[in-house]
Parts: sequence; structure tokens; C-alpha cells
Amino acid sequence: MASKGGLEGVVVADIATSFIDGTIGKLIYSGYAIEELAENASFEEVLFLLHFTRLPKQAEYEALRSDIAKNAAIPHPVINMMKSLSASAPAMAALRSAVSMLSAFDEDAENLTDKDLALAKAVRLTGQITTICAAWMRITKGLEPIPPRQDLTLAQNFVYMMSGEEPDETASAAVDVYLVLLAEHGMNASTFAARVITATGSDMHSAVVGGIAALKGPAHGGANAEAMKMFLEIGAVENVVPWFEKYVKTGERRIMGIGHRVYKSNDPRAGILKRHAEALAESSGKRKWYDIAVKLEETARADEYFISRNLYPNVDYYSAIVLYTLDLDVDMFTPLFVMSRIAGWSAHIIGQMGGRLIRPKANYVGPCDLKWAPLAER
Amino acid sequence: MASKGGLEGVVVADIATSFIDGTIGKLIYSGYAIEELAENASFEEVLFLLHFTRLPKQAEYEALRSDIAKNAAIPHPVINMMKSLSASAPAMAALRSAVSMLSAFDEDAENLTDKDLALAKAVRLTGQITTICAAWMRITKGLEPIPPRQDLTLAQNFVYMMSGEEPDETASAAVDVYLVLLAEHGMNASTFAARVITATGSDMHSAVVGGIAALKGPAHGGANAEAMKMFLEIGAVENVVPWFEKYVKTGERRIMGIGHRVYKSNDPRAGILKRHAEALAESSGKRKWYDIAVKLEETARADEYFISRNLYPNVDYYSAIVLYTLDLDVDMFTPLFVMSRIAGWSAHIIGQMGGRLIRPKANYVGPCDLKWAPLAER
Repeated sequence: MASKGGLEGVVVADIATSFIDGTIGKLIYSGYAIEELAENASFEEVLFLLHFTRLPKQAEYEALRSDIAKNAAIPHPVINMMKSLSASAPAMAALRSAVSMLSAFDEDAENLTDKDLALAKAVRLTGQITTICAAWMRITKGLEPIPPRQDLTLAQNFVYMMSGEEPDETASAAVDVYLVLLAEHGMNASTFAARVITATGSDMHSAVVGGIAALKGPAHGGANAEAMKMFLEIGAVENVVPWFEKYVKTGERRIMGIGHRVYKSNDPRAGILKRHAEALAESSGKRKWYDIAVKLEETARADEYFISRNLYPNVDYYSAIVLYTLDLDVDMFTPLFVMSRIAGWSAHIIGQMGGRLIRPKANYVGPCDLKWAPLAER
Repeated sequence: MASKGGLEGVVVADIATSFIDGTIGKLIYSGYAIEELAENASFEEVLFLLHFTRLPKQAEYEALRSDIAKNAAIPHPVINMMKSLSASAPAMAALRSAVSMLSAFDEDAENLTDKDLALAKAVRLTGQITTICAAWMRITKGLEPIPPRQDLTLAQNFVYMMSGEEPDETASAAVDVYLVLLAEHGMNASTFAARVITATGSDMHSAVVGGIAALKGPAHGGANAEAMKMFLEIGAVENVVPWFEKYVKTGERRIMGIGHRVYKSNDPRAGILKRHAEALAESSGKRKWYDIAVKLEETARADEYFISRNLYPNVDYYSAIVLYTLDLDVDMFTPLFVMSRIAGWSAHIIGQMGGRLIRPKANYVGPCDLKWAPLAER
């Protein structure tokens, strides 16, 4: 059987977590339109929804929020490991290593079959990943990490652990919306990597580490950081058109964060993030990056190449502006993506548990029937 | 498009590293039959072969051997991290974490496009993984790790780093054959996980970490350890038939290490390992485990169920006996598999670099068009 190598159109699983219609820019999580969730839901509600295919009742919501917060602390050896890395190490490498290490401190890590235990591990990892992200930001600045509080939501805890101050509500709300929007997205590459690992019977930490490893790639989760680097390089609204003419029109470079494998119209997440980016730009007084992004979008969308190929800003494009306006280092953008996507990954991992080994085929194009010659005779 | 979920028969890449004909039990690496390589080749020659699709000349061989040995040392923070884990942590979790950490100490880790640099990183990782394995064995026994020597082959260095004594030639040769046999095997699940990660543009360490994560699963690389646990449980040759009658005939359990997704006749690696297991059993005076394995194979192969389904011992079955006779802890079996498979992984990773994002599809079976209800009204 032939293949384009990218497995386009090849169905690998039944899922109830999300549905995407890329032709009309539609995304739903377990029955709810992403626009409605972005407007109303907290990240904790989305995590529950993805795992149980329904929204939590009040008591269930509070139990989950509390469970995440109470289990979000990370052991000292993991903090010491992070401190032993150079501050210039990529945050994604630190996060990947820290999550890998966590398994050695999780007493249920090697239970490979119990789905209830798997969900409890997912809840622990959800909080711990956020704590690792905040801790890494402080460690790279020479500051001591701050442990999580038990009374906060995940988004609030992240903002709190960055500074140790009472979490700002605007910032917490922006982080929460970001976490809701990025939580799940069908059979994307990192989710698929996590499923391939799970299908060997391997453990949840291994699968999540594989997800982080895949999300790190610039053609996947790394794209938000690449988009921001591009905006920083452009540097001013008046540079947008000359930059576009010089690099994009000539085919020398492409615009990071525009175009998507699945969406052939607006990515609905991009529109929501654009509105949040604008509000944050206003409230923070830092309009410049938002203005550059809007101008570049307008320039591209007026260009025949982008029109004819249905290339629109994707989730990475405006999330870069949101995260940068929240004063996050560019290197932290993809770890923030992990903080959110652990929700979708863990639901997929539990859905894959006990499933069939995923082992495609390769087409051999090498030599055949060669005869051995000893080293001295070659 | 429908799928069986396991991607059986779906071609995802052209490769020149290995070809498998499972119907006649044939395996070749880049043109050479596995039987010929097991008889003649060193692991270093196989690593070269998989990367260059030809055997090395004398000077190339010596350069590669020396390159591996000279770059096999691991930084102190990685050793400290391993020491900070409980000695009861799975060796695969320690190895996965240590390899992840190594990226922060590799100055080329974040070069994502240069294939020459990628090969140099693969050479470093090949030596470092062996050093990590030997170091972990010593750390779990309360002993200080021993750094690698520059004058040895990889197999010799492994045997040397376990004890600090001049490496025994019989043991080194057995390890070398094992490394040759396990080095590459088409589009298996760990190789595919590494390729999915690489296709996002992610780095080599991320891809190898994903490979380790997948190989850890009991339906993949973890099977050698599961096979040995089964032999240990059986405990004596006279228990084989009663154990088979009680557990296998009743369908309660299956035999670990018998049956393979691809081989529907003899796995050629199993036959080679069986001969080495027998020789080691003789020379070490420890025949018991070999005798149990042979008796169980005979019992199964006389059974209608195994005959009709073409179920034969696979590579994990007799490699368990070889590794146990070499006095390796069962927990170290799968890390030994990693020591070998890094050769195939790295060739696949470099082959995948610059390739298309691997993103299959999911079939949505969840609810649609649900209306949001506030928390208090659910």
C-alpha cells in the first residue's frame, strides 16, 4: 500500500475528545464548540470534559481542582536536576527531563493497565507540569522555585508560582483561556506519538515524555516560539510590508504561524486568541506586537499566494502575542503548550491503553544479497 | 478510510536499513543476511552499515570505534541525577531521564537540520547510552560508576564498566552478537515513535527519548524481561509441562517471547541467540534456564494452537536466556536492547529529518452540538 508518508487521511482510532472540520474552521471538544468553551469554561472543566465526555458538576469540579493543586508539588531531586542544567538549556529539554524523572517518584508509575490509576497519574502530571514550568522560569533567573498553593486553579497557580505574589486576575484569566484553547486537537503528531508509545504497553510518563518530545518540534508546538521570533525580527509595524516583500514574496522564507495541515479556512482558536491578544495589548499598553501581527496577517491575506492556498493564521500565530504580552520568555511558549495539551494527551493515552501495537510498514529500497568481506579485504 | 488501528500494511517510508520477510524468516541489514552479520560483524561495523549502506574500510572502522569510545563519558550532573533516584526505579526510567538530560550538555543538540552533526550526535549517544547502562547497574548496587576506556569496542567497554576489570572475551563477544542482532528491525513501534517525533522537526535527543519510551512497553522491548520473569517463575525443567497445561492451555496466560507481529515462521534472530545461549549455558555451567526455555519451546511447538497460528520464539525469548546467563539483572534487559537499537533509531531519525509531519486521522464518535450550562445548573 502506498502512502504519502504523512499518514494523511489514515484513521488510527475512534475518539470522543475532539472533532475538527478544517474546511469550515470548526473545532469541538466532546460536543461543545471551542468558542463556547473559550467563553465559559475553565481549564479544569475542560480536563474533566475530555476524560468523561461531559461537564463536571459543582462538587466534581471542586474535587478535580483541589486534586490537581494538592498533587502539583515536585520532589526536590527533580528541582536539583533542573538546577544542574545550564540556564541556557531549552525549557522543553528541562521539562522533558523533569517529567521523565517524575515517574521514579510516582508509586503507581509502573502500573500499566489500571485506567483509574492512570487518570490519577494524569491529574498529578497536570499539576506537576505547571509547577515544573514555573520552577524552570525562576531557576533560569537565579530565583528559588515557589511551591504551588492548594486553594488556586491551575492557571492562578501558574501566575502565582512565577512571582510568589497574589495572582493577577487578568493574567490568570488569559492563561486559563489559553489552556482551554490548546488542550486537545485530534490526532496531532504529539498525541499520536503518545499513542504509539502507549500501544506498546508502556507507562503514562513515557507516553507524556514522548508527547513533549514531539511537541518540541518547530513544525508542531515549537511554532509559537518561531512565530514570536519572527515578530521580534520584524520589530515595528512599518517594517511589516518591506519584510514581507523581501522574504515572503521571494519565497525565501515562509510566515511562521500561518497555514495548518488540517484547517483550510480560519482556525477558530486563532480568532479567539486574536481578541484576547487585542484586549491584553490595550490593558498592558503594549500594543506593538499585536499591531505587527495584525498588519502581517492583513498583508498575507491580501496576497494571491495565501488566498489561493487557503493559508490563514493558526493557533500559534496569536498565541505568541498573548504569551509575550504576559511577559513570558519566548523559550517558555512551547512548555505553556504542554501545560495545556497534557489534558488531551492523557485522555488519548487512557483511550489507547490495552489497544493494538501500532507498527506500520517500510518500503525497502536498499541493496540485496551482498556477500560478506573481511575488514582487511574491503 | 478505515484502519485496524495498528497500521498493518501501511507504508510510511522508504528505508535502506533493513528488510524483513516474515513468511520465510528472513532479515537483512542493508543487503547482508542477519546470519552472516551475526557470524562476522562487530556492532561498530553494523552501526556504520546502517548509516552508510556499506561496510566500513579498516580505517573507517577504527575511526568509528574510537569516536564512540572517546565520546562515551557522561557528565557528572547526569550521574548525580541517577544517584538521586531510588535504586528500585526501573532502569528504563533512569535511562530515559539520563538521555533526556544529555541534550542539555550537547552543544549541537538544538541543531535540527544538519545531517552530519546528527550523525556525530548519534555516535556520541551510542557510547553514552552504554555508559549510562553500566553506571546505573553500579549505582543500584551502591557502587561508583566507572568511566569508559578509549581503547575498547562498545561491547568490551560495557563489560569493562560493569566491573572495572579487564573485559572477559567470552562475555564481550556474547554482548557484541546481541548488539548486532537487535540493532535494527524495520518500522517497529519505537523506531516509528522516533520518526513521528523527528517529523515535527524536533531534535535527535527527543526522538531517542521517544524511542526509549516506546521500547519500554512489554509488547515491545519490555518483552525480553517479561520472558525471563516467566522462566524464573517456572523455575525448573520438570515444571514446564504442568505450567503450560495450567496457564497456557487454559488460555489464562500467553507465553512471553513467542509470536511476532511480522514473523510467521522462525525469527532468524531467535535461532542465532538460541545457539549462543546454549554455548553460554555450557561454558558458564548454568544450563537450567536454557533447558527450561528449550523445553517450553518444544512443548508449545507440539501444540495445535501454536502450530496453526505460526507462533515461534521471537528475539526476546532466547535473548532473555543469553542476558541472564551473562549475570545481568532482569531489569537491565530492555536497556541492553536500547544499547543496540540506538543504531537503527539513529539511522531512521536521520532518514526522516526534513520529512513530512506525520499526522494521521481520528474518527470522532463523541457527542455533537451540546449547549453549555453553567456550573451551578448541571
